[in-house]
Amino acid sequence: MGISLGTARDEPDRNDPSIGTLGEDSLVAGVLDRYPSAPWLTVGPGDDAAVLDLTGPLAGPVVACTDTLVEGQDFRRDWSTARDIGIKVAAQNFADVAAMGGRPHTLLVSLTTPADVPASWANEMADGLVAECARAGAVVAGGDVSAGSEIVVTGTALGTLAGPRAVLRSQARAGDVVAVTEGSGRSAAGWALLRAFGGVAVGDLEPALSALVREHRAPVPPYEAGVEAALAGANAMIDTSDGLVRDAARIAHASGVVLDLDPTALAPTPDLLSAASALGISAQEAQDWVLTGGEDHALLACFPPSAPVPPSFRAIGVVRDGEPGVWVDGRPFSGEGGWRHWS
Amino acid sequence: MGISLGTARDEPDRNDPSIGTLGEDSLVAGVLDRYPSAPWLTVGPGDDAAVLDLTGPLAGPVVACTDTLVEGQDFRRDWSTARDIGIKVAAQNFADVAAMGGRPHTLLVSLTTPADVPASWANEMADGLVAECARAGAVVAGGDVSAGSEIVVTGTALGTLAGPRAVLRSQARAGDVVAVTEGSGRSAAGWALLRAFGGVAVGDLEPALSALVREHRAPVPPYEAGVEAALAGANAMIDTSDGLVRDAARIAHASGVVLDLDPTALAPTPDLLSAASALGISAQEAQDWVLTGGEDHALLACFPPSAPVPPSFRAIGVVRDGEPGVWVDGRPFSGEGGWRHWS
Repeated sequence: MGISLGTARDEPDRNDPSIGTLGEDSLVAGVLDRYPSAPWLTVGPGDDAAVLDLTGPLAGPVVACTDTLVEGQDFRRDWSTARDIGIKVAAQNFADVAAMGGRPHTLLVSLTTPADVPASWANEMADGLVAECARAGAVVAGGDVSAGSEIVVTGTALGTLAGPRAVLRSQARAGDVVAVTEGSGRSAAGWALLRAFGGVAVGDLEPALSALVREHRAPVPPYEAGVEAALAGANAMIDTSDGLVRDAARIAHASGVVLDLDPTALAPTPDLLSAASALGISAQEAQDWVLTGGEDHALLACFPPSAPVPPSFRAIGVVRDGEPGVWVDGRPFSGEGGWRHWS
Repeated sequence: MGISLGTARDEPDRNDPSIGTLGEDSLVAGVLDRYPSAPWLTVGPGDDAAVLDLTGPLAGPVVACTDTLVEGQDFRRDWSTARDIGIKVAAQNFADVAAMGGRPHTLLVSLTTPADVPASWANEMADGLVAECARAGAVVAGGDVSAGSEIVVTGTALGTLAGPRAVLRSQARAGDVVAVTEGSGRSAAGWALLRAFGGVAVGDLEPALSALVREHRAPVPPYEAGVEAALAGANAMIDTSDGLVRDAARIAHASGVVLDLDPTALAPTPDLLSAASALGISAQEAQDWVLTGGEDHALLACFPPSAPVPPSFRAIGVVRDGEPGVWVDGRPFSGEGGWRHWS
């Protein structure tokens, strides 16, 4: 799913100076104005570092992760708005916090950008960060800006573990039910539509297909489902950012088990079939989106028989002993796929 | 101090595959093997997120910041080893934690890199991270890798506030003593030597000059001095990463005061004068290194008359009322300088 078709360069605009023209201090001041505060933000963005008061409702083990979006690899400026990118970098980090059974509360963001990017791009990205933070119950605590030849946005998320312990990849056990939140394949379908119809024509698609594109541009991870899974007693969990099977395989290998998936539970939904039809491709390829499409940020979890599978999850298979790996339809999954860097 | 002279590309080596050849999973596995654990690392790198137990000696307000190094802007691969870059990204983040009066304990790192970079580069950078973490009393808790057209390394540091409150930029008061830890100008001098003598010949320099180059490549921020300043009762503090005067001006503007600096206290040290001599430039230019050279990661603090200036700091001026800004030698400092992105 590597995108390397070049990037859009905006024309200079007198009312929207470039980041290079504006300069670091003014750029940062403009961005900081957009960030709301929060009770736990003792010192917010703008000093050498932020200071967080993680007591009261935020007390407990701290969950921390970092994740990056690179222009030309993870997004194109003519296919995604700056706001989409802000949402996406926040969402992919918060999804990782949720996948441990944590509630995200804080985000730090580093932006590397060419000088000719309009300052409005950075401001709109900040608006996207703020919007996704609000959806997750988090705030931006700090950041950094640097010059570079392509846009690179790195987010670092902090959260608080909701249950008594973290839900790891390595604790799936034979007999567990494998379950996933909704949405697998939607990002891949949206990306295929974008690639086929381009950034503008895609606006004319029917609503169900536009929604797929929208979710590719700006994912909507089910943060609360991660907490529900942890509190329900899930043995293992992962954010399916690299594709359902590839991430299921990570649980399988880390836990030393087989995740045996039922293809009927993984059939493409009607909107994926509509997308396939609009693209003139087969239902089988829509099935591939479900199994190997990346960037869905669904949560895949393994629940012991004693744990009720929360309503936000749907059972798609079982965990059993055997040579670690993922089986689909009664045999080891051999399909290539899932997001890989440098390919 | 922008470096934009291109970058070195290493030749392929059968015994040292490129990152693209090795692939993400093997690359990550190799790097993770290098990271030690720590008592507070309940879940270390390798899962969706890390989990930290910030109780006991690490209890207290959490200090958090993020900072990025970009190839061609902040470093060149033919002038700095991968280990240097690892040290530098850890050091500049930990210096920001120290500048709040915090003790760093945890680092997260995101690496964006072209496919043709040798895997050994990533491993050696990890070794540098580990070395600087050890010096600071911290560990690497997690990270991310991405593909991109140039190397971008983003660190995010977490620490614990040592004193009862954070030392901000905004609380300097008239009557305070301005003081700085040693080392101002050393990174700029080292960079000038590197630029003049190149990455190899610089090894033949006399020890005092080699030390300047070494500190440019791999800074040695005085972390404990930040804690000492906080515990001594400093009113304001900043990491002088963008140059002494430029960062002093940040305190001046945030606090609404004048920082009036004594040039005799800011005279270039003998090794800076030796460097100037070796480069055939004037003592005045060596003075400029002290005042405007970036990346020193010294700590600049303002101590109220009631607070003893800790031995690791040297008084260089006073805080007084007036139009906010920095004065040097009895007049407003008008020299341009200090690190700026996109210039």
